Amino acid sequence: MSDTKRILGIDPGSRLTGFGVLDYRGDSPTYVTSGTVKSADGGFADRLRQIYEAVNSIVDEYRPDIVVIESVFMHRNASSALKLGHARAAALCATFGYDLEVYEYAPREIKQAVVGTGAATKEQVQHMVVSILQLDGTPAADAADALATALCHGTQRRLRARLGSGNRIAGTA
Amino acid sequence: MSDTKRILGIDPGSRLTGFGVLDYRGDSPTYVTSGTVKSADGGFADRLRQIYEAVNSIVDEYRPDIVVIESVFMHRNASSALKLGHARAAALCATFGYDLEVYEYAPREIKQAVVGTGAATKEQVQHMVVSILQLDGTPAADAADALATALCHGTQRRLRARLGSGNRIAGTA
Repeated sequence: MSDTKRILGIDPGSRLTGFGVLDYRGDSPTYVTSGTVKSADGGFADRLRQIYEAVNSIVDEYRPDIVVIESVFMHRNASSALKLGHARAAALCATFGYDLEVYEYAPREIKQAVVGTGAATKEQVQHMVVSILQLDGTPAADAADALATALCHGTQRRLRARLGSGNRIAGTA
Repeated sequence: MSDTKRILGIDPGSRLTGFGVLDYRGDSPTYVTSGTVKSADGGFADRLRQIYEAVNSIVDEYRPDIVVIESVFMHRNASSALKLGHARAAALCATFGYDLEVYEYAPREIKQAVVGTGAATKEQVQHMVVSILQLDGTPAADAADALATALCHGTQRRLRARLGSGNRIAGTA
């Protein structure tokens, strides 16, 4: 198993946070799990706590080597940006107790890597995730985005091994 | 000690996070500690980790009953809002492992409570914090803001005991 890297992809949101776990042996991804964390109830701090605790449980159960998270595109709306920033930070903080590498990619990079165009629709992302990972069913949109985030990193790792670039934002390895 | 409530005030920022700890016995605050967490080095996720780990250490060492944090005023700038949202969430997440009450107040509420006007300057806040807590020196601006946040909650608790209102955003007690 030492040449298998487990990647956790996260698509953060203040009400729905998608997650997806893939095992990479070399260039080849295998689906492990995916899903959506709902954090719709309670006050804002309670919702952050739900994201934090859920991502913490996922990391604790699946023990990924690498966490990959969507970076945030600039919202026109400062209030939305603030909420999304909180949610994204809660997901990141939940991984800090583990010694993981953390990477980020912009949504358009993820779509480009998985669909071949940075302007892909959510349905196109879902379709390609199902096709690449040979899934029996279609994951919910946020889970599919999280799987696409993990797939994007898998592709980038391969390229980076050749080109020596990346989006590493934290971690020791 | 059972009638003493320990309050941790936090003034979050992506580069400087102020903190201040006060003990309230009834209406009377006693200064415990204050300071500033610097998180200027490294990538953005590393800076979040510094805030998260520093606030975690403060909570672990001082064991407050209550955490009070500044709410975020609407930035004109979505990029600043996003960074501040991340920093604030990292500080909040660092308290989630403890069973604390969490409250928030807007900057103008804090200034109103401590200085008597919501338009107070940083210097006025520092001056009143020194005066109310009878400090020998003047805390740095972010530490003074954090102490003011804790003082604001102390005042509001007293009012709330009479009026039954508040800004509770999380916690069980």
